[in-house]
Amino acid sequence: MTRPRNDTLLRALMRQPTDYTPVWLMRQAGRYLPEYNATRARAGDFLTLCKNPDFATEVTLQPLARFGLDAAILFSDILTVPDAMGLGLHFVDGEGPRFERPLREEWEIRDLEAPDPEVHLRYVLDAVAQIRRALDNQVPLIGFCGSPFTLACYMIEGGSSHDFLHVKRMLYERPDLLHHVLDVNARALTAYLNAQIAYGAQAVMIFDTWGGVLSSPAYHACSLAYVQQILAGLTRSHDGHAVPVILFTKGGSNWLEAQAAAGCDALGVDWTIDLGRARERVGAKVALQGNLDPAALFAAPEVIEREAGRILASFGAGHGHVFNLGHGISQHTPPEHVQVLVDAVHTLSRQYHLAP
Amino acid sequence: MTRPRNDTLLRALMRQPTDYTPVWLMRQAGRYLPEYNATRARAGDFLTLCKNPDFATEVTLQPLARFGLDAAILFSDILTVPDAMGLGLHFVDGEGPRFERPLREEWEIRDLEAPDPEVHLRYVLDAVAQIRRALDNQVPLIGFCGSPFTLACYMIEGGSSHDFLHVKRMLYERPDLLHHVLDVNARALTAYLNAQIAYGAQAVMIFDTWGGVLSSPAYHACSLAYVQQILAGLTRSHDGHAVPVILFTKGGSNWLEAQAAAGCDALGVDWTIDLGRARERVGAKVALQGNLDPAALFAAPEVIEREAGRILASFGAGHGHVFNLGHGISQHTPPEHVQVLVDAVHTLSRQYHLAP
Repeated sequence: MTRPRNDTLLRALMRQPTDYTPVWLMRQAGRYLPEYNATRARAGDFLTLCKNPDFATEVTLQPLARFGLDAAILFSDILTVPDAMGLGLHFVDGEGPRFERPLREEWEIRDLEAPDPEVHLRYVLDAVAQIRRALDNQVPLIGFCGSPFTLACYMIEGGSSHDFLHVKRMLYERPDLLHHVLDVNARALTAYLNAQIAYGAQAVMIFDTWGGVLSSPAYHACSLAYVQQILAGLTRSHDGHAVPVILFTKGGSNWLEAQAAAGCDALGVDWTIDLGRARERVGAKVALQGNLDPAALFAAPEVIEREAGRILASFGAGHGHVFNLGHGISQHTPPEHVQVLVDAVHTLSRQYHLAP
Repeated sequence: MTRPRNDTLLRALMRQPTDYTPVWLMRQAGRYLPEYNATRARAGDFLTLCKNPDFATEVTLQPLARFGLDAAILFSDILTVPDAMGLGLHFVDGEGPRFERPLREEWEIRDLEAPDPEVHLRYVLDAVAQIRRALDNQVPLIGFCGSPFTLACYMIEGGSSHDFLHVKRMLYERPDLLHHVLDVNARALTAYLNAQIAYGAQAVMIFDTWGGVLSSPAYHACSLAYVQQILAGLTRSHDGHAVPVILFTKGGSNWLEAQAAAGCDALGVDWTIDLGRARERVGAKVALQGNLDPAALFAAPEVIEREAGRILASFGAGHGHVFNLGHGISQHTPPEHVQVLVDAVHTLSRQYHLAP
């Protein structure tokens, strides 16, 4: 397969020279776009969007038609994997994801098996292939999955949670059961990301949304260790090109050094840490992706430009920065503010990429 | 006023020698105790518990009757202050606090005034005095308030929030209005804590529950700066005794160094950071309070003992550690597990306090 005509993202993730700082946004295909809402209305619900490759392709491409973004990201959901394990995913409007059969009993956990992505997640792989064809090598396509611990949170809680009571109870009372879930998840996710890569994902990202709710020893034992298991099993190049891997841990900036040593190419960081300070801490080990507060996109254009400039200056001169938000874009964001941000990043970043 | 017979907490907060590590628990008077639920049922609702000094005294003392805790903490709520400003606090069962009149319009914000605690928060001061009499100098009484930014979150959102959309919109669109709210709050809270100290609080704690949702520059400008304004205005001794001040910032471990330099005596830290690492970062500037994951109290006694031992060992030899949870105790905690924790801290900590 040919390299995308705009390979700025792939180069930045590998810490290679680029002319400017590439930018994409977590959840860039989403509810802040009227065209997304129109497609979703046609599809009927969110899960149908994910499971139908035509719809998934359509919404993946929508933000690229509007904004000069440097990457596409597969439209899907991290919970497709536990759904493929038979937990029965559905979405309740305004309340988020729910599993019909959360993991509570020991026999349910012992019965858990890693699904074959070619069989049980075929629709995702078909979407990856179809999006690649539709992209026609314009920009790279990012594939993704949730982290083993993050999926375990949803699988054990049965949905979103504020206190993670069930999963933490298992962590402290029956760590053997939790580790079994995490191991099955890690094997499932390794196969899943490798399949996405085989079907055309040119970079992949692991979303560790909930690793940050753990104590430091529990984070290392229950989240990072299983991310490392995935990293060790991933196909890191395809058709002669490196496939960079990004690890994003919301609320995880206490452990940046350990994340940088885990074997990924880039770290996503949320907006609570200064990017320059994060760069000092990880050194030359990894690229960094982030880290504008999504709420800054509510501000006036000149404030968005100022905030983008502040983050670019904080990272400073040199390569290895991918501009992004520190979390998914809010559904209440005015779409025209995204254009302001993309233009600001592209323009303001050139000064940091001049030849020495 | 005389010094409490057990002044271990006060000494630890001032980094003075103690025989063991003192322990108390955030929200130690709460729904995990059947006797608390009985009093609350008699009172009718949560706010009546706070507003009636007899009830507040009764529930403040309940955990001390059960466990060998080293401190009492005033039973109250951080939102009594915006309630005293006229925002109309009420609690919706299962949904948390709500304000009838959240701050949305510029004129509402410009009209905001710092309440006189002697007039508008008299019931809190009466509770402080009554609890002190009931404690009879057994252990010290901790007073508290929310941080200016944390209160602003509730005042502007109108209640709890997951995305802090309204307050962040104001931060980026109308920072002048947000800073006005923060300044009024800081003045109100300074007077409020000073009044608590005058009526008998022997240490005070500032709860910055939501500072951790901000970007690093916004945290410094909107949260820490106004905490510093309070710290600069507090009466730091009463009747010849120092009144230590604890600052707790949930999710705030990115900024420990700045917090330690802000002028408080001790920092509360949540469970996501290793206490030993936190101690390295703050050096000899402040004492540290924390940091067991509240969910660890669901575990079997031997696991609770192991986790307590791990945290004590992480802080290591020497003074200046107050054992606590990293957040409020869960309502689902078995009360007998609290006894296990208190005993474990008292026993296991003695080895770290031996004379050199």
